[in-house]
Amino acid sequence: MNISTALLLADLTGVAVFAASGASAAVAKRLDLFGVVFVGFVAALGGGIFRDLVIDEAPPLAFADWRYAATAAVTAAVVFRLHPQFARLRTTVLVLDAAGLGLFTVTGTLKALDAQVPAVGACVIGMLTAIGGGLGRDLLTAEIPVVLRREIYAVAALAGAVLVAVLDALGRTNAGWLTAAAAFVFLLRLVSLRRRWSAPVAPARP
Amino acid sequence: MNISTALLLADLTGVAVFAASGASAAVAKRLDLFGVVFVGFVAALGGGIFRDLVIDEAPPLAFADWRYAATAAVTAAVVFRLHPQFARLRTTVLVLDAAGLGLFTVTGTLKALDAQVPAVGACVIGMLTAIGGGLGRDLLTAEIPVVLRREIYAVAALAGAVLVAVLDALGRTNAGWLTAAAAFVFLLRLVSLRRRWSAPVAPARP
Amino acid sequence: MNISTALLLADLTGVAVFAASGASAAVAKRLDLFGVVFVGFVAALGGGIFRDLVIDEAPPLAFADWRYAATAAVTAAVVFRLHPQFARLRTTVLVLDAAGLGLFTVTGTLKALDAQVPAVGACVIGMLTAIGGGLGRDLLTAEIPVVLRREIYAVAALAGAVLVAVLDALGRTNAGWLTAAAAFVFLLRLVSLRRRWSAPVAPARP
Repeated sequence: MNISTALLLADLTGVAVFAASGASAAVAKRLDLFGVVFVGFVAALGGGIFRDLVIDEAPPLAFADWRYAATAAVTAAVVFRLHPQFARLRTTVLVLDAAGLGLFTVTGTLKALDAQVPAVGACVIGMLTAIGGGLGRDLLTAEIPVVLRREIYAVAALAGAVLVAVLDALGRTNAGWLTAAAAFVFLLRLVSLRRRWSAPVAPARP
Repeated sequence: MNISTALLLADLTGVAVFAASGASAAVAKRLDLFGVVFVGFVAALGGGIFRDLVIDEAPPLAFADWRYAATAAVTAAVVFRLHPQFARLRTTVLVLDAAGLGLFTVTGTLKALDAQVPAVGACVIGMLTAIGGGLGRDLLTAEIPVVLRREIYAVAALAGAVLVAVLDALGRTNAGWLTAAAAFVFLLRLVSLRRRWSAPVAPARP
Repeated sequence: MNISTALLLADLTGVAVFAASGASAAVAKRLDLFGVVFVGFVAALGGGIFRDLVIDEAPPLAFADWRYAATAAVTAAVVFRLHPQFARLRTTVLVLDAAGLGLFTVTGTLKALDAQVPAVGACVIGMLTAIGGGLGRDLLTAEIPVVLRREIYAVAALAGAVLVAVLDALGRTNAGWLTAAAAFVFLLRLVSLRRRWSAPVAPARP
């Protein structure tokens, strides 16, 4: 298995994980089969579509390579069928979701840097690639996006994006370092879940 | 009347119908005149703007040709004025809306195929062109998008988009076949309304 | 100080003001520090990102020039820290917000005209540049966008955009006239706030 095959497999794993999270939220809101698949599609591919629009890659990868849409749709349909069992996999999903977060942060930031976006902008784009799908999922199900309310989620993505930008500035964007950056996001997310770390909230007004 | 005039008229009819549906939802939410016109604009043109962003047609047709924005704005303003009477036209609106759905599906899918988007991606873009305005309308009025919850709406659009992609692969994208594809979406939507078909919903958890 | 420095300063002032409005709304919804910064970012830069996507300027200015993201993030973080004091500055914020509205209307419309968008489309894009951030802020905090419900806000932006398009048609887009157009939006907004002008709402159905 060469590197580009490995990357594609990793990417599609991220798509599947995010599609499962979107589909799960949609089932909980009593959406129909189409709605579940659609929210799964948005959760899995929304961040990447936004990234590609911003760096002017047309059409976005989600529309250019059918395996992305197919992976998202099939995963969401399976979640729809298996939902009661799926609910018991909650911990597994959180772990896979953290892996997807790490992966999408790294590929999103790299793609933006490759498209000549300056470092600060590329970090924001990388973070948005990773959290954009979850934002879309929550907007479609009429929730205030969970990433804005709780836990170290987007912050882990942003920290990983900064790490990728630093590696890029040092000329160290090889497979080993990039995997380490993705693993850093993954672990930071898992540790913050485990320790219930979260960002501060402003005190309620008296 | 030549073909491009016929297409423009058909397209503007779709814009007017979707603008009416958006304006009607906005009046029901007690938005002001501007809000009603704005939601009408989004409902009529949001799907096409998304399509044009994705296939990198700049500026999007909604901004490049003033007749689109004007049709949407005038229609929405008329609905604002006539709302009580308009409410009685509910069946008419549903029929016209089904016609708009068929039309936007066909033109959206075709444009994406013309822009070299592969078939699966083009079908998704075609469907999103047709349902995107309704999604925007529901997001702006703080509702879970109705197309995700009920009835064969997006599914009819997706089926029509697949039909257009098949016609394209067979080299059969002439006016007759494309009209037939639009009519297919239109009829599928009307029959599903009539028979109260809908996509399945996952069973509530015990 | 030359003109481009003056424009940049004015632009960043607009960014700061809109970031403050977004951050303030996010604090009120009890979002965490990251959420507050994120909503501030969207409120300050969302309109411009949409504008740049539509006129195909890639990457959008918000990602191409780090000073935009930095201004938005720092302002939002300061609001998060100082929120109780900030609440007392409500009138100041409304005045600054009106200034931001005028500025973003003028720069948005001009950029669209420069990108060869026809006049009607350029006016809509200019208005969306000015109100887009506020729309994004309200969507993220699960509110029906306030610009759709009340007061002469978007209408002031639209009037200013039309003024810019007329100046452009007359070949009068020099600094003096453009400042006058921004001031016109600013004053129209302030007067409508003062006099409690608002757009009409459809009568409730009996």
